[in-house]
Amino acid sequence: MKGVIAGRAPAARVVDLTHGIPPQDVLAGALVLQHAAPYFPPGTIHVAVVDPGVGGDRKPLCVEMARAFLVGPDNGLLSLAAPPVEVRRIVHLADERFRLSPPSATFHGRDVFAPAAAALAAGTPARELGPELSAMDRLEVPAPIAEASTIRGEVIYVDHFGNLVTNVPEAALRGRALSIGLRGERVRGLARAYSAVAPGEPVAVINSWGLLEIAVRDGSARAVLGARVGDPVQVEVR
Amino acid sequence: MKGVIAGRAPAARVVDLTHGIPPQDVLAGALVLQHAAPYFPPGTIHVAVVDPGVGGDRKPLCVEMARAFLVGPDNGLLSLAAPPVEVRRIVHLADERFRLSPPSATFHGRDVFAPAAAALAAGTPARELGPELSAMDRLEVPAPIAEASTIRGEVIYVDHFGNLVTNVPEAALRGRALSIGLRGERVRGLARAYSAVAPGEPVAVINSWGLLEIAVRDGSARAVLGARVGDPVQVEVR
Amino acid sequence: MKGVIAGRAPAARVVDLTHGIPPQDVLAGALVLQHAAPYFPPGTIHVAVVDPGVGGDRKPLCVEMARAFLVGPDNGLLSLAAPPVEVRRIVHLADERFRLSPPSATFHGRDVFAPAAAALAAGTPARELGPELSAMDRLEVPAPIAEASTIRGEVIYVDHFGNLVTNVPEAALRGRALSIGLRGERVRGLARAYSAVAPGEPVAVINSWGLLEIAVRDGSARAVLGARVGDPVQVEVR
Repeated sequence: MKGVIAGRAPAARVVDLTHGIPPQDVLAGALVLQHAAPYFPPGTIHVAVVDPGVGGDRKPLCVEMARAFLVGPDNGLLSLAAPPVEVRRIVHLADERFRLSPPSATFHGRDVFAPAAAALAAGTPARELGPELSAMDRLEVPAPIAEASTIRGEVIYVDHFGNLVTNVPEAALRGRALSIGLRGERVRGLARAYSAVAPGEPVAVINSWGLLEIAVRDGSARAVLGARVGDPVQVEVR
Repeated sequence: MKGVIAGRAPAARVVDLTHGIPPQDVLAGALVLQHAAPYFPPGTIHVAVVDPGVGGDRKPLCVEMARAFLVGPDNGLLSLAAPPVEVRRIVHLADERFRLSPPSATFHGRDVFAPAAAALAAGTPARELGPELSAMDRLEVPAPIAEASTIRGEVIYVDHFGNLVTNVPEAALRGRALSIGLRGERVRGLARAYSAVAPGEPVAVINSWGLLEIAVRDGSARAVLGARVGDPVQVEVR
Repeated sequence: MKGVIAGRAPAARVVDLTHGIPPQDVLAGALVLQHAAPYFPPGTIHVAVVDPGVGGDRKPLCVEMARAFLVGPDNGLLSLAAPPVEVRRIVHLADERFRLSPPSATFHGRDVFAPAAAALAAGTPARELGPELSAMDRLEVPAPIAEASTIRGEVIYVDHFGNLVTNVPEAALRGRALSIGLRGERVRGLARAYSAVAPGEPVAVINSWGLLEIAVRDGSARAVLGARVGDPVQVEVR
């Protein structure tokens, strides 16, 4: 992919965001992209490839927004970084002038997405990359459910350190979280930082995505609690 | 390595191709380099370091070709990316002006290969880096054997996803593959893409290197089939 | 982090040194930084984030030296790359103009260290990033103990390959090492290179950091010997 871009858009600066998304984990990729993209400067072209449907029916896309372009498969991967209100245009990357020919059936990153990103970087308008689409596949991240004294959420992402990121946003909790329950473990209140507890102890914080996160200080909450994406989380609130 | 290059060739753009080659796996490194190098623009300097013989007898090399330079150890790592007909010059990186002094015995990437690459990037002709050699160490990738109704190949590479790449090229198969056998598993015919089968099922495709690959949809063929490099593969053809 | 830097210091060249430091392993990060930094050109801004105390009491720092700037947490991570005699100024990164606002409690790499590095790259003097500190947290790497015929050291780092790096410097050994003992294994003398022994055999070399290292040829000394950081090493000398 980097070779294709270096050849077709020599002035483009390529940044590796992550190569650590677990295989086929479209949701993890979508969340990472959603939360990293806003920190890049305007005009950035984000290329994302978590693409188990490569070579099949799913379309290759370019999403044009005011701040950025997103390039990748139409499987939801781009959707969390592209709120509908910010999307100006969705393009099906069908024009063969902006593909390697013939594209392989297993690596559209190299053969379709990198050439499209290079074309954008070299100044080609997104609308020239193919026909416009009216919609894209969108992931549904489950919303937490607020009850009288409980917020019911779930783990939506586990990071490199084994920290458990939930779908419960800071706004739902500020000042009100009494305790957080996960897999039989109960964590008392929100801490300001991991270091508020002793090493090896579980701790709940608001993370850098603005979401409730359960961690184990100097350890892996995934390993210690045996937790994974989808596990329910109950927050007792006052 | 990047520090050395940044100091000696400040204008050079450095691209990370992969840091995922298994330790000491020269064949894996050679295959990845072979299949990635052609996608980079002319004049690219490819530095590759999978170098279990570092500090011993194996020579450090620069291979000059029309399209690119290859820099790395003389252990076969560069050989698949350097077909004999394309090689213009093989240079032994012996000139101490283009080495850190004294070079360590364990990290020629930093002390020998990076300075040589930086010299090339800064415009030094390859022939000035040391004396010319008449040959280099070459890996022998086993060739598949075609019989009346069977092609006998083997697994030559397992990728990050656990996909099993064989030595059987697309040209040997097109339209003729009836079934593929591997470790007692039998896969019916070639699919267009991974998504042609149900999740968890094995599937055979032509991959982005133009080779027959056995995968498991949304899974790891390495893990599911217990396969590894060297395992025989039988393709029944009509 | 890269997005923040790309936005605030577009001309800065960002180099990934490593993403392979084990979680929370401040000593490993400090050793890698210590031994890599001298190979980068003068004026390099090194940003290092191994930061289990993020969001707590530990201060964010910029260390100004003649050759380089170091940016990271005040937990010892920067200390091995910053010998006291080379430190010109230690700055507490407290000025909110050079932070994202408000900083998260879990990712100061993005919110504090990257903006500070970008400011330095864009020409802001270190002294403007916050108040000066008189000292920083320093790691104590244990020193080897020399006795009549034995040098007693220990494993201080295990690299990606499973090689065991000790705290015994080349200067203490040259020409005198008769045998090296580790976890009941005894290695005869120093070899010039890994390839001096048969595959699978343990071998002792001087590594690229100038330290005694115990490796297993074409294997992992960590796995074969069951060794880890802190294991004692005895070198019999003449």
